[in-house]
Amino acid sequence: MRKESERRESLADVIEQINQLLDKHKIVEDLVERQDQPKQRLIQNLVSKQNQNKLKKLLDDLHPADIADILESLPIEQRSIIWELVRSENDGDILVEVSDAVRQTLIADMDSSEILAAAEQLDTDEIADIAPDLPENVFQDVLDSLDAQNRERLESILSYPEDTVGSLMDHEVITVRDDISLEVALRYLRKLGSLPNHTDKLFVVDRSGSLKGILPLKKIVVNEADLKIKDVMVDDIVTFDPNDTADDAADAFERYDLVTAPVIDENKKIIGRLSVDAVVDHIREAAEYEKLSMAGLKEDEDIFSSIWKSVKNRWAWLAINLITAIIASRVIGVFEGSIEKVVALAALMPIVAGIGGNSGNQTITMIVRGLALGVINNNNLQRLLYKEIGVAFLNGILWGGVLGFFAYMLYNNAMLGLVMMAAMLLNLLLSALMGVLIPMIMTRFGKDPAVGSSVLITAMTDSGGFFIFLGLATLVLL
Amino acid sequence: MRKESERRESLADVIEQINQLLDKHKIVEDLVERQDQPKQRLIQNLVSKQNQNKLKKLLDDLHPADIADILESLPIEQRSIIWELVRSENDGDILVEVSDAVRQTLIADMDSSEILAAAEQLDTDEIADIAPDLPENVFQDVLDSLDAQNRERLESILSYPEDTVGSLMDHEVITVRDDISLEVALRYLRKLGSLPNHTDKLFVVDRSGSLKGILPLKKIVVNEADLKIKDVMVDDIVTFDPNDTADDAADAFERYDLVTAPVIDENKKIIGRLSVDAVVDHIREAAEYEKLSMAGLKEDEDIFSSIWKSVKNRWAWLAINLITAIIASRVIGVFEGSIEKVVALAALMPIVAGIGGNSGNQTITMIVRGLALGVINNNNLQRLLYKEIGVAFLNGILWGGVLGFFAYMLYNNAMLGLVMMAAMLLNLLLSALMGVLIPMIMTRFGKDPAVGSSVLITAMTDSGGFFIFLGLATLVLL
Repeated sequence: MRKESERRESLADVIEQINQLLDKHKIVEDLVERQDQPKQRLIQNLVSKQNQNKLKKLLDDLHPADIADILESLPIEQRSIIWELVRSENDGDILVEVSDAVRQTLIADMDSSEILAAAEQLDTDEIADIAPDLPENVFQDVLDSLDAQNRERLESILSYPEDTVGSLMDHEVITVRDDISLEVALRYLRKLGSLPNHTDKLFVVDRSGSLKGILPLKKIVVNEADLKIKDVMVDDIVTFDPNDTADDAADAFERYDLVTAPVIDENKKIIGRLSVDAVVDHIREAAEYEKLSMAGLKEDEDIFSSIWKSVKNRWAWLAINLITAIIASRVIGVFEGSIEKVVALAALMPIVAGIGGNSGNQTITMIVRGLALGVINNNNLQRLLYKEIGVAFLNGILWGGVLGFFAYMLYNNAMLGLVMMAAMLLNLLLSALMGVLIPMIMTRFGKDPAVGSSVLITAMTDSGGFFIFLGLATLVLL
Repeated sequence: MRKESERRESLADVIEQINQLLDKHKIVEDLVERQDQPKQRLIQNLVSKQNQNKLKKLLDDLHPADIADILESLPIEQRSIIWELVRSENDGDILVEVSDAVRQTLIADMDSSEILAAAEQLDTDEIADIAPDLPENVFQDVLDSLDAQNRERLESILSYPEDTVGSLMDHEVITVRDDISLEVALRYLRKLGSLPNHTDKLFVVDRSGSLKGILPLKKIVVNEADLKIKDVMVDDIVTFDPNDTADDAADAFERYDLVTAPVIDENKKIIGRLSVDAVVDHIREAAEYEKLSMAGLKEDEDIFSSIWKSVKNRWAWLAINLITAIIASRVIGVFEGSIEKVVALAALMPIVAGIGGNSGNQTITMIVRGLALGVINNNNLQRLLYKEIGVAFLNGILWGGVLGFFAYMLYNNAMLGLVMMAAMLLNLLLSALMGVLIPMIMTRFGKDPAVGSSVLITAMTDSGGFFIFLGLATLVLL
C-alpha cells in the first residue's frame, strides 16, 4: 500500500539520486576520454559501469509513468543515457506516457527492432497513440506483426480524425447475450479469468449482435444468479458514434458520470468502447492546447528541444504580432505632427491602448468560455452585448476619470485630461464590442474562437486606442 | 438507448421551444398587466397557464444536468420563471450541477423550506459543494436535519480547505473484512441490493478496521465463490491522505488510471473515498480558473450577472494593469525631450514593447507548464535559461533585423534602424530572462506561478522596452 504523498516524496529522492549519478557519469566519461594509459582507462570504465548499474537498479523499481516524467525533465543527452538503461519490457508503456515532443527524441534513439518490440507490448489503442511518431517503414512492420483482427482494429482507430470518439476508443469490450442468466455469465467471466482495465460493465447484445443494454458489474454482484440478463440489464444508456467529437463525449462523461460507454455504428453494432481514462487524457490535452495556443505556441514543445525547433514553434504568432504591431505603429505615424506639438501624447497613449487590451481580453475570455459551455445562443446574444457595453461604460467613466485627472495633474492641462478620459471610455466600449463580436464571428465561420482571439482583440484595442486618443487630441487640442 | 449526438440535437430543439414559450409568456404577461376588463384578463391568464403547462412538460422530461445548462443560458428574469416550473424533486441535483455564480441567483429565489427540501435530496459531499452558497441560518437548518453520522461527515468534508482531497471525497464506501469468503461477501452485497455510483471496488479491512487492500468487483466476478477475500484482494494500492492536494490526486488518477481510491488517516482507518467524477470536476475547474485568472477575472461570472457585479469581478486586475501602464507611461515621460526631437520614436516604441510582451508570454507559458507537470527542477533550470536566451537571441537578430530595416526604409535613417534592431534584441533577451525567473521566483515563495504571470511579464517588457529603446535612441541619435 502506498500513500500518494509518500510516493511523491520518495520519487523526488530517487530523481535527486539519478541526477547525482548522471553528474558522476559525465565526470567519469570525460576522464575516460582524456585518459591515455590503457590501465587507468580500464579502471575508469569500471567506475562508469558501477554508476550505470546503480542507475539501472533505481530505474527498475519505478512505475513507467514515473520514468516517463523523469525522461521529460532531462536534457537530451542525459535522457538518452537513462532511456538506454530502462528495462526494455517497459519501453512500450513509457512511450505511451511521454509527451509527443519527447517521444520523438526517444524513438530517434531506437532501432527498428527495438521499436517493434516496444509496440508488441501495447494494445491497439495505445499503438494508435504513438503511431504518428513512428518512422513510416517501422509502422509498416508493426502493422505486419499484428494478427488480422488487431490490424483491422488499429486501422479503424487511425481512420478517425483526431479529437473524435473513434480516435479515442479502445476495443476492450466484453459482450454477453441478453437471453442467458447471470449464472451463465458468471461462468463465462470465470473462464476469462481477468477483465480489461476499467471494466465496470458488460455490453449486452441480442442474437444478431445489436446492442440492447449494459450490465454493470454492480448489478451482477447484488442480484441472484438465476435471474436473466435481460431482466437485470439497464437499457436507458448513453451511446456514442465514432464520429462524435471528443469534446461532446467529455461533456457527456461529466454529465452522466460515466466510466465506460459503448461506441456503436448506425446498426447498433458495437465498434469499441470509450473509457474515462481516454476522456480525462483528452480533457487535459485540450486544456493544455488552448493554453499553448493562447500564448502563441503552435504545439507542445519539449522544454529541451533545440533552439532552432523552438524558434520554429513560436514563429507563426510572433510574425502575426509583428504585423499588428506595425499597423499600430503606422496609426501613430499618421499623428506624428500632433505628437511633435504635444509630446505628452506619446507618454499617455500606451495607457489607453493597454487598458483597452486588458478589458477586451476579459470580455473575450467570458464569451469564449460561454460558447464552450454552450450557454450562449442567438436568444441571449443581444443581452450579453448590452451587459458588456454596460460594464465597459462604467469602467470607462471610472478609470477614464481617474486617468483623466492623472493626466490633468501631471501636465496641468484640463483639455488633455478630458481627451484622456473620453479616449479611455471610447476604447473600452470598442473593446467590449469587439470582445463579443470577434468570437461570435469566428464561431459563425466554423473557427475555434479561442485560438488567436487574444491577439486579434489586442490588435484592435492597440490600433483603435491609438487612433481614438491621438485623433481626439488632434481635433480638440490643436 | 440514446445516441449522444441525437440527444444533443433534440436538446437544442427543446431549448428553442422553451425560448419561444418564454417569449410568448412575456407577451401574454404584458397583455394581462395592461388589461382592464376582468373577462379579458381571465382569458389571457388562461393562455398564460397553458404556456406554463407546456413549459413544465418539456422540463419534466429533461435530465437535471440539461436543465442546469438551460438555466445558465437564460437571463435572470427568465431563469426565475423556469426555475419556478422545475419539478421540486430535481431541485437538489440541479443546484449541484450549476456554476457557483448561477447557484446564488437560484437560491435567492427560494425560501428556507424549499432549500431545506432540496438539500435533503443530496448526499453529504453534494451538500458540501453547495454549502458556501447557502444563507447562514438555512445551512444551520440543513445541519440540524441530518442524522448524527451524516452531520459529522458533512462537517468533516467542510473542515478541509478547498482543493484538498478531503474537500473532494465522498463517504460512499463499502467495506468487507479480509477473513471472509467471496460467497459471504456476495451475500452481503445482495442484501444491500444496490451499490453507490462508481463503485468499482470494495475496501478490505481487518478486524481492527485498518485498510488492508481493495477488492475490485472484477475480481469478485472472475473468481470462484469459495475463495477467501485475503487471497483475492489487491494490496499494492494507491491511497490518499485528506490533506493531499487535489492536483496531486488528479495526477495520480491519470497516472494509475483509477476510478475510485480510499482516503485514509495515519492509522489506515478509512475516512472516505475519492472518485473519478470528483477528480474530473476538479481538473475542469482548475483549467477554467486558470483561464479566468490569466485574463484578469477574479472568479467565475454568471454571464447575466448585473453590470455592477461584473465590474467588481474585473476590478482588481484592471487596477493592477492601470498601475503598470502608468509606470510605463512615466518611463516614456522621462524621454519626452528625445521624442520631441525625433518624433519617429513615438511611433516605433510600441512595436519594441509589444513583441517583447508576446515573446515573454510564450516563454512564461512554457515554464509555468513545465512547473505544473513537474519536469523543471534545480538540476535543469540553468539549461532552460540558456535555451530560452538562445531562442530570444535568434528571434531578436531575425525580427530585430526585419524591423530595423523597416524603420530605416520608413524614416530613411540608418542609425534609427540600428537602434531599433538593438532595442528589439535587448528587450527579447529581457523577456526571456524574466519569463524564466518570474515563475521560478513565485514558486520559490509558494505562490501559484500561473496567476498574474502574464500581467507581470507584460509590465516588465513594456516598461523595459520603452526604457531600452528610448534610452538607446537618446544615447546614439541625440
